[in-house]
Amino acid sequence: MTTQPAQLRAAIVGSTGYGGVELIRLLAAHPSVKVTSVVSSSSAGSLFSESFPHLTEIVTDALDAVDPELIRSKADVVFLATPHGVSAKLAPDFLAAGLKVIDLSGDFRLKDRAQYEKWYKKEAAGQEELDQAVFGMCELFGDEVAGASFVSNPGCFPTATVLGLYPAVKAGWIDPDSIVIDAKTGVSGSGRGLQLNAHFSEVNENFKAYKVGQHQHTPEIEMVLARAAGRPVATTFTTHLTPMTRGIMSTMYATLTDRSRTSADFHELYRQFYEGRKFVRVRPTGTYPATKEVYGSNYCDISLFADERTGRLTVFSVIDNLVKGAAGQAIQNLNLMMGWDETLGLTFTPVYP
Amino acid sequence: MTTQPAQLRAAIVGSTGYGGVELIRLLAAHPSVKVTSVVSSSSAGSLFSESFPHLTEIVTDALDAVDPELIRSKADVVFLATPHGVSAKLAPDFLAAGLKVIDLSGDFRLKDRAQYEKWYKKEAAGQEELDQAVFGMCELFGDEVAGASFVSNPGCFPTATVLGLYPAVKAGWIDPDSIVIDAKTGVSGSGRGLQLNAHFSEVNENFKAYKVGQHQHTPEIEMVLARAAGRPVATTFTTHLTPMTRGIMSTMYATLTDRSRTSADFHELYRQFYEGRKFVRVRPTGTYPATKEVYGSNYCDISLFADERTGRLTVFSVIDNLVKGAAGQAIQNLNLMMGWDETLGLTFTPVYP
Amino acid sequence: MTTQPAQLRAAIVGSTGYGGVELIRLLAAHPSVKVTSVVSSSSAGSLFSESFPHLTEIVTDALDAVDPELIRSKADVVFLATPHGVSAKLAPDFLAAGLKVIDLSGDFRLKDRAQYEKWYKKEAAGQEELDQAVFGMCELFGDEVAGASFVSNPGCFPTATVLGLYPAVKAGWIDPDSIVIDAKTGVSGSGRGLQLNAHFSEVNENFKAYKVGQHQHTPEIEMVLARAAGRPVATTFTTHLTPMTRGIMSTMYATLTDRSRTSADFHELYRQFYEGRKFVRVRPTGTYPATKEVYGSNYCDISLFADERTGRLTVFSVIDNLVKGAAGQAIQNLNLMMGWDETLGLTFTPVYP
Amino acid sequence: MTTQPAQLRAAIVGSTGYGGVELIRLLAAHPSVKVTSVVSSSSAGSLFSESFPHLTEIVTDALDAVDPELIRSKADVVFLATPHGVSAKLAPDFLAAGLKVIDLSGDFRLKDRAQYEKWYKKEAAGQEELDQAVFGMCELFGDEVAGASFVSNPGCFPTATVLGLYPAVKAGWIDPDSIVIDAKTGVSGSGRGLQLNAHFSEVNENFKAYKVGQHQHTPEIEMVLARAAGRPVATTFTTHLTPMTRGIMSTMYATLTDRSRTSADFHELYRQFYEGRKFVRVRPTGTYPATKEVYGSNYCDISLFADERTGRLTVFSVIDNLVKGAAGQAIQNLNLMMGWDETLGLTFTPVYP
Repeated sequence: MTTQPAQLRAAIVGSTGYGGVELIRLLAAHPSVKVTSVVSSSSAGSLFSESFPHLTEIVTDALDAVDPELIRSKADVVFLATPHGVSAKLAPDFLAAGLKVIDLSGDFRLKDRAQYEKWYKKEAAGQEELDQAVFGMCELFGDEVAGASFVSNPGCFPTATVLGLYPAVKAGWIDPDSIVIDAKTGVSGSGRGLQLNAHFSEVNENFKAYKVGQHQHTPEIEMVLARAAGRPVATTFTTHLTPMTRGIMSTMYATLTDRSRTSADFHELYRQFYEGRKFVRVRPTGTYPATKEVYGSNYCDISLFADERTGRLTVFSVIDNLVKGAAGQAIQNLNLMMGWDETLGLTFTPVYP
Repeated sequence: MTTQPAQLRAAIVGSTGYGGVELIRLLAAHPSVKVTSVVSSSSAGSLFSESFPHLTEIVTDALDAVDPELIRSKADVVFLATPHGVSAKLAPDFLAAGLKVIDLSGDFRLKDRAQYEKWYKKEAAGQEELDQAVFGMCELFGDEVAGASFVSNPGCFPTATVLGLYPAVKAGWIDPDSIVIDAKTGVSGSGRGLQLNAHFSEVNENFKAYKVGQHQHTPEIEMVLARAAGRPVATTFTTHLTPMTRGIMSTMYATLTDRSRTSADFHELYRQFYEGRKFVRVRPTGTYPATKEVYGSNYCDISLFADERTGRLTVFSVIDNLVKGAAGQAIQNLNLMMGWDETLGLTFTPVYP
Repeated sequence: MTTQPAQLRAAIVGSTGYGGVELIRLLAAHPSVKVTSVVSSSSAGSLFSESFPHLTEIVTDALDAVDPELIRSKADVVFLATPHGVSAKLAPDFLAAGLKVIDLSGDFRLKDRAQYEKWYKKEAAGQEELDQAVFGMCELFGDEVAGASFVSNPGCFPTATVLGLYPAVKAGWIDPDSIVIDAKTGVSGSGRGLQLNAHFSEVNENFKAYKVGQHQHTPEIEMVLARAAGRPVATTFTTHLTPMTRGIMSTMYATLTDRSRTSADFHELYRQFYEGRKFVRVRPTGTYPATKEVYGSNYCDISLFADERTGRLTVFSVIDNLVKGAAGQAIQNLNLMMGWDETLGLTFTPVYP
Repeated sequence: MTTQPAQLRAAIVGSTGYGGVELIRLLAAHPSVKVTSVVSSSSAGSLFSESFPHLTEIVTDALDAVDPELIRSKADVVFLATPHGVSAKLAPDFLAAGLKVIDLSGDFRLKDRAQYEKWYKKEAAGQEELDQAVFGMCELFGDEVAGASFVSNPGCFPTATVLGLYPAVKAGWIDPDSIVIDAKTGVSGSGRGLQLNAHFSEVNENFKAYKVGQHQHTPEIEMVLARAAGRPVATTFTTHLTPMTRGIMSTMYATLTDRSRTSADFHELYRQFYEGRKFVRVRPTGTYPATKEVYGSNYCDISLFADERTGRLTVFSVIDNLVKGAAGQAIQNLNLMMGWDETLGLTFTPVYP
């Protein structure tokens, strides 16, 4: 850390949501970034710490209004931790003001506006901004992120899922048409907004499926897998809610194209693919990850099981949905945009137990 | 209930485990059965209520030793809520003593001794008893249970899974070779014995896979599906631990044999198949069950989603692992053995929330 | 059960809240009551089962509007499972229509209108109805409930707390001015209405105090303890939220008036006081209750610890807040009003684990 | 951090327990300490990462045996994260080998051997080592810790409790004889050793009291409060288990010596008392802390409520039991021993939600 880069000033829009507050936690430990503006449309003017008393000593500022010019005067980069539909409206003005923008919503991930409107049931962002936004799946498209000024941060499920499937699809070792994705998430993924599906007594001691056949992350997953396969891919993607706060596990199934390939073969394929990428850990053959093993950290842990009995591959991939699935990967993208080491400020050890 | 059957006397072996104590809870409300002997190999002689103070007023007896003659003098039917390997040793003596036996372990489910020994890694029960034991999946094989004196109660995962797949396989509407089963269970399924995988701090706020490719319920599921398919079936069956006490959800995937069949078609197929069977509830198309919706009850709730986009069927099936997945189905089997209404004493409303 | 009383028809207002749905669960097992009207101001006309799919087979009715004449035509007794402030407005019309009324809200518990308005910050009910409403703490004032037509069901915290303190205060064995009550509740006590304090990610893996010095159950507790003491009593009453759905533990502290009295003395005092009252279980000296030991049941379990080292009594009292703390005690009150055995339809065994 | 101190080498004995693994998590972020030996009596020789796969990249070493000479060759300071009774046996040899020692067990906290043997029911450590060990409650006795070579780290409950009571007792604003302490802890406090009281299904959705009148932290609390009061103090101290992994809340009650003192008066007293001590945060009057607000951090948050209605003070104090209640405070003690800033390497932001 001898050649420590100069301090970058960051603004966080939507700072009182879970994505925003996690950005604040992580950036407080980043050696080269300082949060200089916390922004909220609903609570501008009040103290940030009224929303989160546990951050009283860490964020002493009042909340700024969503004013690109004001924010431009205080910051160099802006994180949009805003809901779908809101980012699409805000991003152009922030870009026009000359800020670097990292958007955590789904508004700029799908390049096909019709796809967005089908799955999100909202008007899509403008094609110009869509074309400008780089899809920041760091371990896959980091080269495109380097030097970019506008990055669209991937969704939580797509991050866990695509990191788990990409090398096998790319290598042609599994049949893309056979992919089934069974995903489980902690409740924080639905955000801080009140809803019955996040009401404690409804989800505690309960396990449920939701948005069956309709989850908006489906086309995002298929978009990236299509890049790996070199042709369109349709997957069965099912999401479940598990009674915990943080964590995603994606369990993925696909038919082997060559039944003689073993778990060890897949392990070696993945190990080589992710060589040098510190945040993806390919677990030893025969061991399987648990979400808590990445809790509070930016890791994505992956295990592979090729079953000769059924001719099928099973992939397990876990992340902390608020870190690698949101705020952590957003900072990793910032590191790449700035040409810094992608792990800068992100080397948190998982909180266990 | 005017022609209420005479009171049957029941003994419970392994009464201080979770299966045993759930039998006691359920039988306390059964109009035609009275628990007359609680049996424990490890704590014989001490009061039952020392293990479970909340049952002080309900079970005032001391624990009996595992003595078939003694138990024969006190009971007409014995529930074996004993671990795998133990039931195999105990059942013959109880049968020889003239007791009706319902075994909740896995020892008498697989009729092929080699299969048992491969998956359970224990010596199999004798072939004579294996042949005698009726596999008590009530809604499928209730006719065989009627009048039987020895019933092997199905496993928790097989119950949720097979009830969810059987009608579609039987009808030939899905390809048996394409079946993927992604199962999630609450922690009580592992019993009351201490183990790191049931240690609170290891499983709370955590989601993990376990026994990947090795779960002993795999051959039990395949045995029943083979009956439906009329030929051997190999499935991918993966089990996960979710941070809650009770509940199983099995999410199942298979390829449609005719892509034009809709969710509504499957709904109608299942509705007809389970007509008159109160404990299997086929949920309306477009709605999906949660484990808490069957908490503490003997229901199995099933939903079906046929996706024309991918040509695949997704089935969701939920049970309370300690009721329909263990003690409840055991009592349902007793009802069938005795020629009673299968719902007798089992009409508990789910505890919600 | 040969002399089974005739079937009583019951209506439940506020049936889609947690109090309402618990009344439905419990009454489904009551041999002498049938729910003939489920009432909701917000969802009248829609099917009840749309709110609670797990009750589809149990409640097939559509929701009735809040119409006393309509309900009078369908029911003999009405349970008001409505929020504070609403019951006060509804009860007079239901009483005028000739229905028996059991109110689960706080509106008719405090007989002093000024006290109500100070703690509830709402306008109090009319004095006439307040005078008419019998405070239904069954084990203490069951005689007053017998034959009443309007009963005010006690609060959840007061039930656990007062049952734990009453005998000792009444006997003069503790100093009423020294009482400290430290209460902990599961999240379902706050109801089904959305609020940040019941948002899963805010309360899971979290323990917090709330309404410090302001909880509206304070004057209710003091009102009853004053009856025991024969003079006004002021207590320190503090409530905490614990990350579980159901259950209350009240831990209570008071100075012994005679330091030589032992835990055994207190046990005997309580045992005699609650003799014949099945739902209050005084636990053996040296053992302490857990909330799960009464889960889903109408029990209140109490333990007593007199510490000669400090000259202080500690009392532990646990209930299921939705049963003995709400719907269960309401039904117990109905049983008493009707002259039935108070345990009728309420002998649920706790769900454990 | 320009004058960064030289790297200190640390060994952790009992590294596979929860205290040990938390030391590893925290020290991984400490700029001046490097863990050079992980020690385990039971698993010496095997890889540390076999016990904790999530630390594979962070701890690559094999476990060392408990060999003071070996450890002396590899480390400058040793943390004993060993059970009660074990530390007493190990500490003398490590001290004799010339290592600095920080003991996280209870073996060296009580200076009165008879007290230890009464409450711990084990043989006490030698008087010589007891006299040598400094009781490291950092914010109270930091001066004594500076320069010490042997520190006894306080217990988790005493830390939360004593920090919450000390200023008021010291100032004579509350009556020491009136103190009641109602403490609640997450399950990780009981360690990684298997026991029924930490078995998931026994503690999930459950709230229970334990060790009533017998908790070994009682004399430790009273020892420190006696220093504040200038005379012996006997308190009522009751511990409860709450269904979460991390966190302690201690709610404390005492009689005001001057009823006219307000919450604001107490707030100012505490603010001044803890001035400059970053890890104790006195919360604004009228707001109350939650355990999650300090999750994963070294903070102790305190709120004060003086109630003129009852003449009583209520104090709320929360910590993360594994950080401020164990590993974090141990590192804070190391910082003080070394003359470093006490916050060095400990400025973790709480993980929320």
